[in-house]
Amino acid sequence: MALNATFRAVVCVFFLTHIPATILMDSQAILPASMVPGFAKELLAFHIDRHHDPLMAQQPVWFKSLILFEILFQLPFFFVGFYAFYMRRNWVRIPGIVYGVHTATTLLPILAEITYSKAMPTKQARTVLFYIYLPYLIIPALIALLLALEEKPFGKAGDAGAVQRTGDKAKRR
Amino acid sequence: MALNATFRAVVCVFFLTHIPATILMDSQAILPASMVPGFAKELLAFHIDRHHDPLMAQQPVWFKSLILFEILFQLPFFFVGFYAFYMRRNWVRIPGIVYGVHTATTLLPILAEITYSKAMPTKQARTVLFYIYLPYLIIPALIALLLALEEKPFGKAGDAGAVQRTGDKAKRR
Repeated sequence: MALNATFRAVVCVFFLTHIPATILMDSQAILPASMVPGFAKELLAFHIDRHHDPLMAQQPVWFKSLILFEILFQLPFFFVGFYAFYMRRNWVRIPGIVYGVHTATTLLPILAEITYSKAMPTKQARTVLFYIYLPYLIIPALIALLLALEEKPFGKAGDAGAVQRTGDKAKRR
Repeated sequence: MALNATFRAVVCVFFLTHIPATILMDSQAILPASMVPGFAKELLAFHIDRHHDPLMAQQPVWFKSLILFEILFQLPFFFVGFYAFYMRRNWVRIPGIVYGVHTATTLLPILAEITYSKAMPTKQARTVLFYIYLPYLIIPALIALLLALEEKPFGKAGDAGAVQRTGDKAKRR
């Protein structure tokens, strides 16, 4: 059974919207302030002020290491993943599992810290921030799970590229 | 090309030795002290004293969340993974990639914290502790990489179990 059309659409939107979020917001945890445009700094300041995000406010070293990999590995994958999910390419299965497991894993310490941080002013603020981060665990985990369960995530049509290449090889022989 | 025999042996030893390490040492970051045998407490105290491990000494919340998943997910996988690598079972490919990527990812914040922690007394102590943790990044990352590259990690022989099942299905029809 191929992946559900709604899920495919959700994943495409998720990858596309994650690109500006990573470049403009998350990257501020490790980029020098001089490289960040003013409006992005204001957006982050608004987020920290409004949602009391202790991770973006204090930027502990372990959190920065996860942001570094978000920029080095996740960011390029958003383009690859969007293309593959949009065009239904079965070759995304293994890279998609790697992306999904990696990203879901990075959310474990983040959600744990939000759940127990002493810097949260109220229980409600803690809950709101938890639910802001939660989709970044759930969607990558679902991507990994569904790709793991489906040997051909987009059905036989998803092999289009591979069939083409096999044909090319056959011609050369 | 199937997985190298030496690598298979290294992985088997890695899984087997990780079982007591998780149960006796790492689990102390989240288990109540009353559940931990005396000699394990002494071993951990020796490790903290000798290697100045700031993570096992201070046990920050984000670190505990990773230990929780080491117990819930990695520990059962050590048995499954050992069996599959020992018996050469190709079905370990996807679970093995998930295990490898998850575990390698948990080592990123750990190694970052060790690299920059202010609790390390000397540069040499920092280097020693870094190299104590490093294999837990490298071996799982290699497991994930090699399984990702090999559709049949143990060659055709590794399908033994699957062929059996397909045969059963055919009979039922």
